[in-house]
Amino acid sequence: MNNHDQIKQLITNWAAAVRKKDMVKILAHHSPDIVMYDVPEPFESVGIEAYRKTWDIFFKYTKPDVFDILEIRIFADEQVGFAFAKMQCADKSNSSDYVPLDFRLTIGLKKMDGQWVIVHEHHSVPAVS
Amino acid sequence: MNNHDQIKQLITNWAAAVRKKDMVKILAHHSPDIVMYDVPEPFESVGIEAYRKTWDIFFKYTKPDVFDILEIRIFADEQVGFAFAKMQCADKSNSSDYVPLDFRLTIGLKKMDGQWVIVHEHHSVPAVS
Repeated sequence: MNNHDQIKQLITNWAAAVRKKDMVKILAHHSPDIVMYDVPEPFESVGIEAYRKTWDIFFKYTKPDVFDILEIRIFADEQVGFAFAKMQCADKSNSSDYVPLDFRLTIGLKKMDGQWVIVHEHHSVPAVS
Repeated sequence: MNNHDQIKQLITNWAAAVRKKDMVKILAHHSPDIVMYDVPEPFESVGIEAYRKTWDIFFKYTKPDVFDILEIRIFADEQVGFAFAKMQCADKSNSSDYVPLDFRLTIGLKKMDGQWVIVHEHHSVPAVS
């Protein structure tokens, strides 16, 4: 599999793990020093433990089965790659309605010991003016 | 200059061009099909003309001399690179006070004809809950 497809598979599997709330698989391909810019505060989360905590917050919000890649573009070289995507998750605060939230996602990766790892994620929604 | 330093110089020059409101230099190293995720709406801006318009909006907000890279990390291979940074700009709505806004920035680049070009920018602040 070429680098582009390796990254695509990694991100696809990661999103599937989020839908299943499978924390082990969510964290499986992240660098210990990942820097996360998430939709809600804090401004940044540095390191894998802080990154894990962002998911604890997220799982209070989302329906487990809605964390979807609507559109993605991937740029991959031999050792460095990134991707950006339109994403959709959904609020579980009202169990009878489907209330989707579209958000923007950018992911930065590098290869370590022959395997792609995520070193940076940036999730956001436009600010309300 | 190695790839890391080329990207660092490109981003440093771009931020300096923003401070000077020099639109030609702001746009000098962007791909025609850049995809911009900006702090305010719209959700995304696709293409260099839409990207240019985000600066028209921005310049109504910022002091021209405040668009600063507080901290940056760069990952560069031969053909693909990305960077993420803590940034600061400032509101000019109150000319007597310095009202800084910290925001997060991620930039994705690829090399075209031997030159780095920006194909993606993601600017955001955490959402207010």
